Amino acid sequence: MDYTRRQKSLAAELRRSRLPALIITHLSNVRYLCGFTGSAGVLLVIAGERKPRLTFFTDGRYTSQAAAEVRGAKVVIASKPALAEACAAAQRAPVKRIGFEADHLSYTGYRLLSSMTRTKASLVPVAGLVENLRSIKDADEIEQIRAAVLLGSSLFPAVLSAIRPGVAESVVAGELELQARRAGAEGMSFDTIVAAGARSALPHGRASVQPIPGNGFIILDYGVILAGYCSDMTRTVHLGPVSKAHRNMYQAVLEAQLAAIEAVQPGVESGEVDRAGREILKKAGYGAWFTHSTGHGVGIEVHEQPRLAKGQTQKLEPGMVVTIEPGVYMPEEGGVRIEDMVLVTESGHEVLTPTTKELITL
Amino acid sequence: MDYTRRQKSLAAELRRSRLPALIITHLSNVRYLCGFTGSAGVLLVIAGERKPRLTFFTDGRYTSQAAAEVRGAKVVIASKPALAEACAAAQRAPVKRIGFEADHLSYTGYRLLSSMTRTKASLVPVAGLVENLRSIKDADEIEQIRAAVLLGSSLFPAVLSAIRPGVAESVVAGELELQARRAGAEGMSFDTIVAAGARSALPHGRASVQPIPGNGFIILDYGVILAGYCSDMTRTVHLGPVSKAHRNMYQAVLEAQLAAIEAVQPGVESGEVDRAGREILKKAGYGAWFTHSTGHGVGIEVHEQPRLAKGQTQKLEPGMVVTIEPGVYMPEEGGVRIEDMVLVTESGHEVLTPTTKELITL
Repeated sequence: MDYTRRQKSLAAELRRSRLPALIITHLSNVRYLCGFTGSAGVLLVIAGERKPRLTFFTDGRYTSQAAAEVRGAKVVIASKPALAEACAAAQRAPVKRIGFEADHLSYTGYRLLSSMTRTKASLVPVAGLVENLRSIKDADEIEQIRAAVLLGSSLFPAVLSAIRPGVAESVVAGELELQARRAGAEGMSFDTIVAAGARSALPHGRASVQPIPGNGFIILDYGVILAGYCSDMTRTVHLGPVSKAHRNMYQAVLEAQLAAIEAVQPGVESGEVDRAGREILKKAGYGAWFTHSTGHGVGIEVHEQPRLAKGQTQKLEPGMVVTIEPGVYMPEEGGVRIEDMVLVTESGHEVLTPTTKELITL
Repeated sequence: MDYTRRQKSLAAELRRSRLPALIITHLSNVRYLCGFTGSAGVLLVIAGERKPRLTFFTDGRYTSQAAAEVRGAKVVIASKPALAEACAAAQRAPVKRIGFEADHLSYTGYRLLSSMTRTKASLVPVAGLVENLRSIKDADEIEQIRAAVLLGSSLFPAVLSAIRPGVAESVVAGELELQARRAGAEGMSFDTIVAAGARSALPHGRASVQPIPGNGFIILDYGVILAGYCSDMTRTVHLGPVSKAHRNMYQAVLEAQLAAIEAVQPGVESGEVDRAGREILKKAGYGAWFTHSTGHGVGIEVHEQPRLAKGQTQKLEPGMVVTIEPGVYMPEEGGVRIEDMVLVTESGHEVLTPTTKELITL
């Protein structure tokens, strides 16, 4: 990964915003900028006039890991809280304006910075600065995301063969996760969703200890992490005879998903992609049951910029990687969701997820 | 679980603090108080003069789940952000002072509350209020934690049988996690740690795709979630012939762990428990390699109050459940950590984790 380029891009953004320093507390932003994968640490970026200076503060638990992983930043094993050390270092730089990540700093953390700076420096809340850089993936990242998506998809047959009436949803998830580990995944992108029968009507139904019933939809929504990048896919399969109502529901979601994918183009507002699928579900009479947004960016985190939701005006750009995942959820009856990962290209889009979207019955 | 009692205890605390309302944004506090297990929602507690009034705000993804799970609180499916709805409801209550969770509200969230209240109500940062209630487990919780600990321990033989030189650490983790699912676990308490050979010197070495080498320590640190409560245990085993240096290291950590457990008594400062184990490691010459604290509370979260660390003056109380987990980490050479869960009782303590602490060689 080209950390130097990322660090330079951020420094250029900071100079444009006349912000000489930024304290980064969101760990996936830290990872993006310097490669640290641990769970505690703060990165200070001094924009500099020509070349940024980065310092990463962490604690004694991460001495070896930081030494092995961090690129382009000085590592300091802090004795005081890393946030306090980062703030003190910014003031010593010296800078008079210090940015902080407003969405990723607690009120308590903010008060600490306030008490340390008082009249000596002003604190500037910053939102989405590193996240915006991250929303456009570079070639290395796209390659890594492709590999994660292919690994995730390759596990789908193993998931199917684990599904049997009476088996707990969580055991299906466990079989999938073991296969993922065997195939080289570092972990799962999020809590695996296996939601069968009436539970398929829960849009966020994590795999429970409930046994899979003999008939109905099963939503399978999972992702793997490979070299730090996430995949995310959903397929809905059906156990037992498929009623006409269920077949119609599946067909409507599939058509909505295809229409939303078709709308993915550089320059298109992300809300427009949401609208394209939502219209189809409305016309088919399922509008009220599509209760979430259409998708989200994916990268180091499974939920990133951009958001593909009603009314969002952010324009899609080449290099963005997003999910397209409309769903319909009818309480008691069941639900359907179909999700692919899609790359925005110069000329349109490329669907990264190769798994079939025909309705599979088991 | 006795949500009514918890809600009453919190309301009593609020009245004592002359705080008529508290906005709860930390999801494990939400779960503790009203049973909601989803990943988005805000709970408003109005203390009332005699009886608290609770309202839980979430979004359309959680309609069914909130209806099924929430106890003792009115559920509102919010169209605006749940935080904004909770703040508006507090002002309509009406109250003039509104508490918020300072450690669990972002600066951005705080700004939203500020802009909504202005001169109409004052915002009061609150830290650790619900967490303090949670640190003393009631009988239902202790029973649930015991069950989680026993389930976790019961998986240990399966972990051992998955360990072989050349197998990836992550595959050992996957086998464990599948067995956990089969045994009825809802999930794991945290990313399973399988850290073999030189990687055992990383105190937080999550299972990697590295193959297990033929000789050296392997740290196995994992926990399961059962009915919402976490377990947490660590054992260190050894592959291949054990050098005298490795045996001494193991013995020192074991003695430190036993001494720290022995120090667990109601009324004892938690820093004293840390000191008891640390002294032994210092005397044995390993002081510099014990780079983390001795333990932490466990419950709905795997890391809760109290902290058992150097200098902590909080006194242990009956009903607290804590880990005791000293460790020694020598870069390149390897590491040892041994961790049990321990209940503070009226008369002393009870070790909940039944797994042997003799050094197992494979």
